[in-house]
Amino acid sequence: MKSEDELGDWRRSHYSTQVTPEIDSEQVTLFGWVSSVRTQGGITFLIVNDKEGMFQVTTVKGRESDELLEKVAGIGEHTSIGVKGTVKKIAKAPNGAEVIPSQIKVFNHAEKPPFSVFGGELPSIDKRLDIRSVDLRREKAQALFKIQRVLQRSLRSFFDERGYSEVRTPKLISTATEGGASLFSVLYYNRPAFLTQSPQLYKEELTLPFEKVYEIGPAFRAEESRTQKHLSEITSVDIEEAFVDYNDVMDTLEALIKRAAAEVADGCAREFEKLKRAPVAIPKSFERLTYDSVVNEVGARRSGISWGDDITGQDVEELGRTHGSFYFITDWPTAAKPFYIRPKTATPKVSESFDLMHGALELASGGTRVESKAMLVKRLKEQKLKPQAFEYHLGVFDYGMPPHAGFGLGLERLMMVLTGEQNIREVTLFPRDKLRLTP
Amino acid sequence: MKSEDELGDWRRSHYSTQVTPEIDSEQVTLFGWVSSVRTQGGITFLIVNDKEGMFQVTTVKGRESDELLEKVAGIGEHTSIGVKGTVKKIAKAPNGAEVIPSQIKVFNHAEKPPFSVFGGELPSIDKRLDIRSVDLRREKAQALFKIQRVLQRSLRSFFDERGYSEVRTPKLISTATEGGASLFSVLYYNRPAFLTQSPQLYKEELTLPFEKVYEIGPAFRAEESRTQKHLSEITSVDIEEAFVDYNDVMDTLEALIKRAAAEVADGCAREFEKLKRAPVAIPKSFERLTYDSVVNEVGARRSGISWGDDITGQDVEELGRTHGSFYFITDWPTAAKPFYIRPKTATPKVSESFDLMHGALELASGGTRVESKAMLVKRLKEQKLKPQAFEYHLGVFDYGMPPHAGFGLGLERLMMVLTGEQNIREVTLFPRDKLRLTP
Repeated sequence: MKSEDELGDWRRSHYSTQVTPEIDSEQVTLFGWVSSVRTQGGITFLIVNDKEGMFQVTTVKGRESDELLEKVAGIGEHTSIGVKGTVKKIAKAPNGAEVIPSQIKVFNHAEKPPFSVFGGELPSIDKRLDIRSVDLRREKAQALFKIQRVLQRSLRSFFDERGYSEVRTPKLISTATEGGASLFSVLYYNRPAFLTQSPQLYKEELTLPFEKVYEIGPAFRAEESRTQKHLSEITSVDIEEAFVDYNDVMDTLEALIKRAAAEVADGCAREFEKLKRAPVAIPKSFERLTYDSVVNEVGARRSGISWGDDITGQDVEELGRTHGSFYFITDWPTAAKPFYIRPKTATPKVSESFDLMHGALELASGGTRVESKAMLVKRLKEQKLKPQAFEYHLGVFDYGMPPHAGFGLGLERLMMVLTGEQNIREVTLFPRDKLRLTP
Repeated sequence: MKSEDELGDWRRSHYSTQVTPEIDSEQVTLFGWVSSVRTQGGITFLIVNDKEGMFQVTTVKGRESDELLEKVAGIGEHTSIGVKGTVKKIAKAPNGAEVIPSQIKVFNHAEKPPFSVFGGELPSIDKRLDIRSVDLRREKAQALFKIQRVLQRSLRSFFDERGYSEVRTPKLISTATEGGASLFSVLYYNRPAFLTQSPQLYKEELTLPFEKVYEIGPAFRAEESRTQKHLSEITSVDIEEAFVDYNDVMDTLEALIKRAAAEVADGCAREFEKLKRAPVAIPKSFERLTYDSVVNEVGARRSGISWGDDITGQDVEELGRTHGSFYFITDWPTAAKPFYIRPKTATPKVSESFDLMHGALELASGGTRVESKAMLVKRLKEQKLKPQAFEYHLGVFDYGMPPHAGFGLGLERLMMVLTGEQNIREVTLFPRDKLRLTP
C-alpha cells in the first residue's frame, strides 16, 4: 500500500496565484490537488490546483533526491499533497514561476474518478451527482458557485442597505401555509408537523415589530414532478414590507435583480469566460403585463382560453418567446392566488399580485397581502381552509396589522437565468428531488 | 364598527427620526403604530413608533377638523396609522419637532394585548411567545434582534474576507450523521428521511472542491429536555477548512468571537443601554485547558471522577465559576467524540478536539477530522455505526481527501453570551422545543 503523510506542522505560506517571478528563490509551502502529471526525459511536471488557481512543481532526475522522485512517481490525478520548495522564475509555468520541491507530503492518494473533471465528455448530471464533491471540481462548477457567492452577497447588501431586517423563521411548523398538498410531514415528538414551503405567514407577522424584513433560507416542497426547474429543497429569498403595495414591491424586485445581475457581471468576468457565456441581458425596465392582456395575447393565438385559466405549458413557452427577457404578469384572478393575496377593492375578482418571469421561467411571485382579519377569514373559507388552523396568525391581525406586501424569489432559478444553466441541479450543491435524497 | 382605511397612494416621505426642526413647515407623510395617546384640555398627543424611532402627532380642538378629531378619538395603542401633515418645531417633542396632521388614515385598530409591551411587569416568556409578533415590539426585544443582525453581518464578513466560501447544504438527509438518537424523521415521498442536526459530513466533503467553507443555517435536534439553553431548531454557524488542524481552527474561532463582540459593542451602544447591560468582557486570549487538566481540577474538588468521564452538571458550573469568561477544553477522550474526530497519532486515546465554553455554557465544538478512509471505517465500527450507511461519504475519501478541521458554533448561544440573556428563547424569533411548535 502506498504510504500517506500527516499534515504535522506544515502550514501554507502562499496560494498558487502568489507563486510569481516576484518571489523568485523564496521558500514556500503550498497545498492542493494534483490535476496533471507529465513526465518527459527524466523531468516530471505536476500541476497542482488550490482554491485560487494552479501551480507547477517540477522534479528533475538527478537533481531531486531518489526518495522524493519515488514519492512523485506514486502521485496521480486528485492526490492531495503538500509541497515545500523554492520558487523558480520560468516563463512557461502558470503565473511565470514553478516550485522546485525539497519535500513533498502525500495526504491521500486518489482513485480514478468515473469521469474526468478536467475536460472531455461528461456523463449525465445524475451520474455526476453521485460523486458530487468531485464533480464540483470542474472549472464550470467552480465558476457557477463563485457566481452564486457573489449573487448572495449582492442580495444581502441590497436588503441591508435599504433597511430590511434579516430574520430567520422556523422551518418546522404546525400548519400548512397554503393548503397541505406539497408539504413534507415530520414526526415532532410524537406529534405531526410539517416543513415550511415558505416563510409567508411569519414574514407577514414580522412586519408588525420590524416593518421591513428579509430572509434567505431553505424551503421544502414535495413536488411530484421531476423537471429541470423543480427541486424538493430550494433556497427562498423572501421580503415583506409594511405600508407599501405590490407596485412598490415590483419596483424593489426589479431593482434587486438589476443590481445583482450587474454585480455578478462585474465581479465574475473570468467565471463567465469559463462558462463561455455572456452575462444575461437586462432590459432598461421590466415589462408589466396584466393577466388580462396575457389572456388576450394567448386568445389571439389559440381558441379555448377563458379568463380565470392559469397560464401554463405551451402558452408560457410562447409568452417567453414573445417577451423574451424579464417581465411581470400582474393582476391575477383572485381565485387563482393564495388566501393571503389582496383582492382589488374596486374589482375584487382581480388581485394585487404578480409573477416575475424570465422567458418561460417563473422566478418570483408576490403581491399586496390582505391586512384585514375579516377579509382573511373570508378568503380562508373560500379556499376551503379552516380558520381555526390559523388561529395564531389571525390573532396577530388584532394588534394593528399594517398594510403590507412582499415577494418570494427562488435563488436557484435566478442563478439559472443569470448563468444560462438549463438544469436547476447544476446550480445546487446537493439537489433533492423525488428520486434523489443522496448525497 | 370602527371604519378602517386603505393605504391607497400614500407613501412614506420620512421616518420618525427625520422629523426634526430642520424640516420645520415641510409637508410629510409618516406611518407607524401608536404607542401612547394623551389628551389634555382639548389637546391630544399621539406618540407613533416606526422602525427607526418615534414621532409626535398633536391635534388641538378647534384647530383640526371635527372629522379628524373624531378619527383621533378612536385611536388606541397599537393602532397602525398613516399621517399627512406639517412639521412644527417644538422643543418638547421627540427629535424636537411634531406633526400637525391634515389627514390621518387608520389601517387597523388594535385590541389591548394581554400585557403591555411599553413597560411594567412582563408575564413569563411562554405567555409572551403566544403573542410573539407583538412581544417583539418591546424595546428590549428590538435591541436584542438589532444586535443579532449586527452579529450575523459580522460573522459573514469575517468569513468572506478570509476566503471562506459560503455554502448551503441540504437539510433533508438520508442518514444519521452522529447516530440517530436526536434526529427528527421526515416522510420523504414514502421513504424515511431525517432533518440534519449538523452539516458535518457535507462541509467535510466540500473541502475537496472549495477548501474553506462556511454555512450559517438551521439545524434540528429532537432534544428531550426542555432547558433554558436547548431548542429543537437552532442556527448553526459552521466552518470546515483543508490543510489545517484543530489549533488553527481554535485560533480562527477565537478571532471570530473577538471581532464579533467588538463589532456588536461598537455598533450597538444604544441597544446595550436599552438592555441596561454592558457588552460581554472579552479576555486578551482564551484559555486552553486540556481535558486532562480539567479532570485533575475536578478531581481536586470531589472524588469519583475518572479519566474518560464527560464533564457535566455541577462540574461544569464549577469550571464556569473558576474560568469565568471564554475558554477552550481541548484534547477530549477519543471515545467520547463522534467518529469523524481525529485521534492523536501518538496517543490515539486522546483526540484533536475542543469545546469552546463561556462560563458553564458550551458555545461551539470542533476538531481535526479523520482524513483516512480506513481510519474512518474503523471509527464508525467502534461507535457501532454501519459503514454501509455512509457509503457516499466514505466514497469521497477515495478522491484525495485533504487533512481538514472545523467547528460548529450555536448562533443563539453566542447571542446569549454577547447580550447576557439567560433564556435562549429570548434571542430566537419563534423558538421550537418539545412543547412548543407554534407560533
